[in-house]
Amino acid sequence: MSLLEDGTDMHRTHLMAPGPTPVPERARLAMARQLIHHRGEEFKEVMHRVRRGLEWLFETDSDVLMLSCSGTGAFEAAMTNFTRRGDTVICVGGGKFGERWGDVARAFEMNVVDIDLQWGEHLEPSRLEEVLDAHPDAAMVTLTASETSTAVMHPVRQLASVVRQNSTALFAVDGITAVGVHRMPMDQWGIDVLVAGSQKAFGIPPGLGFVAASERAWKRYDDCDHPRYYFDLGRERRRQQDNQTAFTSSISLTLALQEVLEMMRQEGREELIQRHETNAAATRAGVEALGLSLLSSRHSNAVTAVVLPDEIDGAELVERLRTDHGVIIAGGQKHLSGKLIRIGHIGFFESADIRLTLGAVEEVLNQMGLDSEPGAALTAAQRVFVQQR
Amino acid sequence: MSLLEDGTDMHRTHLMAPGPTPVPERARLAMARQLIHHRGEEFKEVMHRVRRGLEWLFETDSDVLMLSCSGTGAFEAAMTNFTRRGDTVICVGGGKFGERWGDVARAFEMNVVDIDLQWGEHLEPSRLEEVLDAHPDAAMVTLTASETSTAVMHPVRQLASVVRQNSTALFAVDGITAVGVHRMPMDQWGIDVLVAGSQKAFGIPPGLGFVAASERAWKRYDDCDHPRYYFDLGRERRRQQDNQTAFTSSISLTLALQEVLEMMRQEGREELIQRHETNAAATRAGVEALGLSLLSSRHSNAVTAVVLPDEIDGAELVERLRTDHGVIIAGGQKHLSGKLIRIGHIGFFESADIRLTLGAVEEVLNQMGLDSEPGAALTAAQRVFVQQR
Repeated sequence: MSLLEDGTDMHRTHLMAPGPTPVPERARLAMARQLIHHRGEEFKEVMHRVRRGLEWLFETDSDVLMLSCSGTGAFEAAMTNFTRRGDTVICVGGGKFGERWGDVARAFEMNVVDIDLQWGEHLEPSRLEEVLDAHPDAAMVTLTASETSTAVMHPVRQLASVVRQNSTALFAVDGITAVGVHRMPMDQWGIDVLVAGSQKAFGIPPGLGFVAASERAWKRYDDCDHPRYYFDLGRERRRQQDNQTAFTSSISLTLALQEVLEMMRQEGREELIQRHETNAAATRAGVEALGLSLLSSRHSNAVTAVVLPDEIDGAELVERLRTDHGVIIAGGQKHLSGKLIRIGHIGFFESADIRLTLGAVEEVLNQMGLDSEPGAALTAAQRVFVQQR
Repeated sequence: MSLLEDGTDMHRTHLMAPGPTPVPERARLAMARQLIHHRGEEFKEVMHRVRRGLEWLFETDSDVLMLSCSGTGAFEAAMTNFTRRGDTVICVGGGKFGERWGDVARAFEMNVVDIDLQWGEHLEPSRLEEVLDAHPDAAMVTLTASETSTAVMHPVRQLASVVRQNSTALFAVDGITAVGVHRMPMDQWGIDVLVAGSQKAFGIPPGLGFVAASERAWKRYDDCDHPRYYFDLGRERRRQQDNQTAFTSSISLTLALQEVLEMMRQEGREELIQRHETNAAATRAGVEALGLSLLSSRHSNAVTAVVLPDEIDGAELVERLRTDHGVIIAGGQKHLSGKLIRIGHIGFFESADIRLTLGAVEEVLNQMGLDSEPGAALTAAQRVFVQQR
């Protein structure tokens, strides 16, 4: 009998979805603080520290602007501040979020060139080069670096290099599940616009989007003719350089952000990335030891997408993990609904969380009829953890 | 010596600005909760309760949509979903926020007819009637019901009636400091679009904007040709009717909102408005007893704007209240900077907060040379509180 269903709710809940991700206690306590005024000196000092922390994480000398919106709002801002109406935009698909940027571009009356990919497939640099050759007028290339719907990590560094060498297009990267998870040094790699969101590697609640833009991108800003007001990044930049926001700040989230950026700095940027890489490798090793295969051709450190055998119903698996173990993972999206599970490991997770999740997945799958040796997933994961130390 | 300046920080801080406003403990504890997944059943139940609570407060049968943005984002959404490019929009000015809607409309290439008002002056219905007669093609009239920069409350009910009787324009009301503060029954009064924000009467942190629209407004939605994606209210309505949000929900703020809506229901809608009215009346009585005058020709229950004598420097007064008493109020904005103080009384304030504020204001003003009888402000306020019980 499920502990949740009988109303006792005795299970701890383990949020192992690819975001939102559990919020560390010191950030939750910051969320519970009484408000400070967003136009006062104390908040300015918070903004100053947060801005330095974001620049450190994005590895950029540019301003990383904070916006009160979800990641989609931040990406819309990226598109509508650095292109013109009717511009050609090359949108890399291959997943729910990659395809969304094509929809955003169409909503803003741009000429969209879609690069269609099988869900699970990553973009080869040579293919991008061909598309750029065919569209020399392209003003922007959009890419979801880590595609949350498929667990694909695209080769961002090589793709950035292809854009730079073959085009004057800006390279706009949705780093919502990549920043703080994979190295993403925007200045060094030549990323023009990089977007992130609060509820992913930052491990705080949703509600803040981040956008950083290169000087190359800011030069296009002045010619931009999209109508915009709330998402006018020029106004935001002027205000944020003064440690203010253009409109009322999301005060509590900013206080929480200050805490997690400090945690990230204490851990170290390389160590933060390495921890994600190890957790991801251990998760993949675990599910492969169950005889299951991965959807992604090139793997994200944020999420693992596991293809289920036909006889296993994904929705039932997700539901049993939740009710029997309090483990919250995600299923497949769109046409992969029911055929996939997605285990998130983005944020402040340690090896215990991965063991907890793999243990529950293995137990339920065995109960649902999957034939594997009990302990196989945990054993495979342990080998990864032991090797990495 | 200031307790804050010497670093001991022993003062409690009393946030008496016109928003953000102190967050009740049960809402702060909700902010500190571990996240729940925004696509799970528990969150859907929260959304269901919150939607019912918002409809109760807005006094409407329409959907009150929640958006992850500040109030300005919500107002932009109101404008860009229910008008067409080039439409004539009549924007009532007379303060920082009223004038902002003219700026938003201009950013979206609309034909703006400004109704200029002296800051502090309210709009007479007869004047709106004249402007409507001169612009029979107007598609929308925008009004900031309670103008936070001047403490003016416009006669919304009469203005709505004028719009209805003289025009086919939609009446879009910024109720950011009016909803939950003054009665604002949108269906009964014929308000077409009503906007609010989380950090005002709701008493939770900034980051959520609310928009409700009449069926008349939704009929215009289908013809709307403004480019938009994040703020597409049609998509939001479809999702929120299913107790979801179109993009990642501001989970923690929604949990906090659930708490304060419950508090408002327990207090009662009439009692909530009455409490604001009493606190506002007591504040006005207090400052008038000091011989000071009010800026507003018709008063908001959210904020009191006090005109200072020439010999009193507003910036110094605000600063001394902060450092000597921990009382945070606001100064004047734009051309009224330094000439005005604005005392907020929007949110979960009781008479003790008003006495605390008036006591500090009186003490500091007397120290700065204002000649009044010590206790005059408190005495005048007490008369109001006693009479109202």
